[in-house]
Amino acid sequence: MISVFENPWLGGLFGDEEIAAHWSPEAQLGHMIRFEAAYARALGACGLAEAAMAERAAQAIEAAKIDIDDLARGTARDGLPVPALVAQLKTAAAEARGAVHHGATSQDVIDSALACTLRDTGGVLRGRVETLQGELAALRDRFGDRALMGRTRMQAALPITVADRICGWALPLGDHLDRLDRLLPRAARLQLGGPVGTRGDLGGQGAAVARHMAGALDLASGAQWHARRDGVAEFAGWLSLVSGGLGKMGQDICLMAQQEPREIALSGGGGSSAMAHKQNPVLAELLVTLARFNATQVSAMHQALVHEQERSGAAWQLEWMVLPQMTMATGRALSAAIALCGRIEEIGAPV
Amino acid sequence: MISVFENPWLGGLFGDEEIAAHWSPEAQLGHMIRFEAAYARALGACGLAEAAMAERAAQAIEAAKIDIDDLARGTARDGLPVPALVAQLKTAAAEARGAVHHGATSQDVIDSALACTLRDTGGVLRGRVETLQGELAALRDRFGDRALMGRTRMQAALPITVADRICGWALPLGDHLDRLDRLLPRAARLQLGGPVGTRGDLGGQGAAVARHMAGALDLASGAQWHARRDGVAEFAGWLSLVSGGLGKMGQDICLMAQQEPREIALSGGGGSSAMAHKQNPVLAELLVTLARFNATQVSAMHQALVHEQERSGAAWQLEWMVLPQMTMATGRALSAAIALCGRIEEIGAPV
Amino acid sequence: MISVFENPWLGGLFGDEEIAAHWSPEAQLGHMIRFEAAYARALGACGLAEAAMAERAAQAIEAAKIDIDDLARGTARDGLPVPALVAQLKTAAAEARGAVHHGATSQDVIDSALACTLRDTGGVLRGRVETLQGELAALRDRFGDRALMGRTRMQAALPITVADRICGWALPLGDHLDRLDRLLPRAARLQLGGPVGTRGDLGGQGAAVARHMAGALDLASGAQWHARRDGVAEFAGWLSLVSGGLGKMGQDICLMAQQEPREIALSGGGGSSAMAHKQNPVLAELLVTLARFNATQVSAMHQALVHEQERSGAAWQLEWMVLPQMTMATGRALSAAIALCGRIEEIGAPV
Amino acid sequence: MISVFENPWLGGLFGDEEIAAHWSPEAQLGHMIRFEAAYARALGACGLAEAAMAERAAQAIEAAKIDIDDLARGTARDGLPVPALVAQLKTAAAEARGAVHHGATSQDVIDSALACTLRDTGGVLRGRVETLQGELAALRDRFGDRALMGRTRMQAALPITVADRICGWALPLGDHLDRLDRLLPRAARLQLGGPVGTRGDLGGQGAAVARHMAGALDLASGAQWHARRDGVAEFAGWLSLVSGGLGKMGQDICLMAQQEPREIALSGGGGSSAMAHKQNPVLAELLVTLARFNATQVSAMHQALVHEQERSGAAWQLEWMVLPQMTMATGRALSAAIALCGRIEEIGAPV
Repeated sequence: MISVFENPWLGGLFGDEEIAAHWSPEAQLGHMIRFEAAYARALGACGLAEAAMAERAAQAIEAAKIDIDDLARGTARDGLPVPALVAQLKTAAAEARGAVHHGATSQDVIDSALACTLRDTGGVLRGRVETLQGELAALRDRFGDRALMGRTRMQAALPITVADRICGWALPLGDHLDRLDRLLPRAARLQLGGPVGTRGDLGGQGAAVARHMAGALDLASGAQWHARRDGVAEFAGWLSLVSGGLGKMGQDICLMAQQEPREIALSGGGGSSAMAHKQNPVLAELLVTLARFNATQVSAMHQALVHEQERSGAAWQLEWMVLPQMTMATGRALSAAIALCGRIEEIGAPV
Repeated sequence: MISVFENPWLGGLFGDEEIAAHWSPEAQLGHMIRFEAAYARALGACGLAEAAMAERAAQAIEAAKIDIDDLARGTARDGLPVPALVAQLKTAAAEARGAVHHGATSQDVIDSALACTLRDTGGVLRGRVETLQGELAALRDRFGDRALMGRTRMQAALPITVADRICGWALPLGDHLDRLDRLLPRAARLQLGGPVGTRGDLGGQGAAVARHMAGALDLASGAQWHARRDGVAEFAGWLSLVSGGLGKMGQDICLMAQQEPREIALSGGGGSSAMAHKQNPVLAELLVTLARFNATQVSAMHQALVHEQERSGAAWQLEWMVLPQMTMATGRALSAAIALCGRIEEIGAPV
Repeated sequence: MISVFENPWLGGLFGDEEIAAHWSPEAQLGHMIRFEAAYARALGACGLAEAAMAERAAQAIEAAKIDIDDLARGTARDGLPVPALVAQLKTAAAEARGAVHHGATSQDVIDSALACTLRDTGGVLRGRVETLQGELAALRDRFGDRALMGRTRMQAALPITVADRICGWALPLGDHLDRLDRLLPRAARLQLGGPVGTRGDLGGQGAAVARHMAGALDLASGAQWHARRDGVAEFAGWLSLVSGGLGKMGQDICLMAQQEPREIALSGGGGSSAMAHKQNPVLAELLVTLARFNATQVSAMHQALVHEQERSGAAWQLEWMVLPQMTMATGRALSAAIALCGRIEEIGAPV
Repeated sequence: MISVFENPWLGGLFGDEEIAAHWSPEAQLGHMIRFEAAYARALGACGLAEAAMAERAAQAIEAAKIDIDDLARGTARDGLPVPALVAQLKTAAAEARGAVHHGATSQDVIDSALACTLRDTGGVLRGRVETLQGELAALRDRFGDRALMGRTRMQAALPITVADRICGWALPLGDHLDRLDRLLPRAARLQLGGPVGTRGDLGGQGAAVARHMAGALDLASGAQWHARRDGVAEFAGWLSLVSGGLGKMGQDICLMAQQEPREIALSGGGGSSAMAHKQNPVLAELLVTLARFNATQVSAMHQALVHEQERSGAAWQLEWMVLPQMTMATGRALSAAIALCGRIEEIGAPV
């Protein structure tokens, strides 16, 4: 019950299995394992480890069976799971252990796994934005010419068309896609810095190792970003821009549903335990909730920009507490908006 | 991985089983069941249902076996689990169904269950604040006379004693207990209003029913609070005051741990995957993280004060997303602070 | 135009002259001057300065003509105005300069001036809460029996009375007064600590000096609070609880004003530059705005709880940026709510 | 004293005259006047008003002497100054009044004036980002090879160079410039919609009028954005990304200044009223403060995305309360960072 996204019954309303899968322990561990394997191979490719030993290490890493309980104990002790994971991988690599993680550090693993996750969830969200564009276009085609009372400052103003109202929901979506294209290379970027972010143990081969790994992991390459978090915060800002715009759509639909005569008819759902005649606009309310949730969380992500020295434990952990939930909220907002479009049986009045 | 509190490995650092148990589906369902049983009995006691039938209903409610999947489907449909739960309970009560939930509404059930949870978690947190007071007093006894450099605006200023520093951590705790005593009766209060909060179906017996139920459920009684959320927001503010003060303690310890020569020695934990010589002040960092997390979340709880009309779906759901996490964060901050005191091997320098 | 509270035209909507006067340079400087004079006299009374010299210093302080431009230059240089102010006061005190500020520090002056301001603005706000209680009671007397559609989750539910709706606005006010009574002694408390908060230069007379000053300045006495900010953050939380509850009232009135037929009739204001027939519920909107503003700002005040060591420059300045605005927002919310009550010509429908 | 940016003494630390000038009543009124003049001329150019009368109206608008007190009274009454302003302009235009504002609405004026202001302040901020890039490059040239202890999780880790540390401050700046180039056309965009945002009174000529005006006012053209606020919120997010990154620089410098031996030497400022030997890193603290301030405010701008129907009074006013302050905070953060670079006399240790 701590997280509405995973709660046995609230999960029915808030949950989003597709996004959740990208944050699952399996997915996250998979990214970490792939990072370590790619690192071993990159060491080999750049002459920093003997090639066959590097490949042996990589294969051992990929085949290792991870003890999750040991990771939990390690996290309690060290503040993150990587030291315990690396110890397990070194054991698995046996005599090839020299090519495991040597010269890398915990934050490289965690941040690169995050980069993979932002890329993957970003892709899912992009697809949903496009789907929603299609749904809104279809609504506009179907009901666009109908009449609606335009309302400003909560008061009836002058007549508009349904198309005018829907336009206000749809227009930001195209810009969201442009924004995502621009920011994703800054967020889905390999992190490789080593203990203090200087790639100091890589003997001048740091950039080459990073390029090799970025290719293998399908991430953007570039300078290390261990202590600058603007790429991550920008992604969070985008999540909240998207859910915020959908919150406007949700609020509009809640308001349309309360007019007499109703300006919108929705199918499905919204029963009351006390009043059989009521139908609550559940998904529209949810859009408002998720918008206000993300509008709150984005503040934490910006607080975490004050990331001191070569690595802030406190600021970094704050990101962990907030960013996964923000992707869930935006993912669910998009799927709820899409579903809501499908439940609209009528908007506005015939002319 | 969505919630750090329940994550398989991060849970090792952030998790708090005792608080989590109070938010478990079992505990929450238990509160809802007890609410419905107490309601049936109160209807009987106040002459709003035939006494034997009311008791039969109450017993059927208490004995009912709940289908959780059905609650999830119901929540997806209705935005909350109560309509589905009540349907199950009515079925269980069979011919006594007339004494089930009749005159109450979903928000009564959910908000009263919340009130029980705030009472219970409040009790746990109270105990921990007292434990921490003891731990800090013991530290003061042990190290209080030692010398420490007093620092203002991040600069060495003038010598102080260890007792001076610890005092700054301990002083707010007594005030926190006073605050909790005052606010808990406003937060742990029975909610009973019926469909639109007027207790309209209770034929003038609303106050009597409420008193009866409050007694049975060990909650404060009083007017309905369905649409005024100040009691809940005040509780959230208290949670963040507590974690914020502990964040100051955590930040101080992080800063003491980085001085050369070290101003504090901690045992246990904090390993680095890259640097064997390092020992990271994991629990102290965690205190800062949790403080900043709650300082963010408290904003959402205050946004939710704008709770329109007789019930806002959107504002209410926002509370669900945030308040359980805040109790977890404060719970964990307290347990981490207590543990941290136990790990302090030395503070300050002998005089 | 930076601050809506002081903007030449927006000030007409957002401004609050009575609260603003308590934050005026004159008022703030007055508090600082009175602090320094009380301090000099307390030094005399406790034998830490020769009595006649202390009185001479106090009188010179009270009579000093302060050069504001010099304070601005000093603030740019030192981060706060006190070093420059003390230099001016010492010059003014001439041979009695030894009894000026010696053993105190900048934060004592600034924080005690804040304590005075919170006491004074708290008093104004208390008076307004009581006035609003009266206004709402009068509305209830006048329109309470009328019919209104009760609405839950933005949907028409069941009929209620106007009294039911007004009750939801009025009930929190009494609790707000209780809360204020409890927290004000924690917020309006003398701060006296000296350079590192230990009252170290006061030769064991610190508590006596503090008591003497608290009496003279009409503040609560007690331990120094230089680095624990819970009293200040608690005050901020109260401000936002108040404005949040008024935001609910504002939102309700906006929603009532948009129903057809209108559920509320308001006199005065709200013209549109384009539509002469429209009347916007300006003050009701303003209540929502101010609620959401304070709900945001309260987060900064909680972030500022992480106040490192014996004085955090950064956390402290954050309070300066936020707390005055929060008092203005709550002050204006109360005055707007009172004015709004006066503009209500009708609520609900005759039965 | 309400706003630190305009406070007589705190303004010495927080103030930023260049940015403030863009928010001055003169500048804002100038934008509104220019909007109305451009609108009159566009009506003429597009055949919606007789050309000579349109030009006469435009000239009368440009020459009108505005009564500010009347705007304040109008704002108190109408919630914004435009109705009163338009009334004054119509009077000034006398018989050409038909070409004044007809078909436009208040939000067009206010939002377009905002667009102009974001363009202008964006230009100032861009210039400062570039200056700061130069300052940091110069520091790197001067001290880059020196040794510094790399610190992770607040603990000494491994040696790095000063260039490594400075790189972490400088790298985001280039990305900030790219971001600004992308987002400015979305924020600095003409708003023209008329009463309900449909350009309904412009007889199919709306797009032509808008293009004409955008050219005259040097704004991007495009669809109306009255009820979608993503462009404005995105700008706010950028402001906080910039100040957040500078907060990291400030925090680093505070931490460097407290090490013994000092890792950084700063000239100027930072005096203490109690301890002559202390030098507080005032500007570095300020960077942290401003970062945390904006990280809070960005939340309000995202809350304001829930902008209902064709115009939300409440959400819009929330922007007015927050966005000007955010531009001030980022402007001051940049100028403080630039000044701070100039005060660095030494960083790191000779190798």
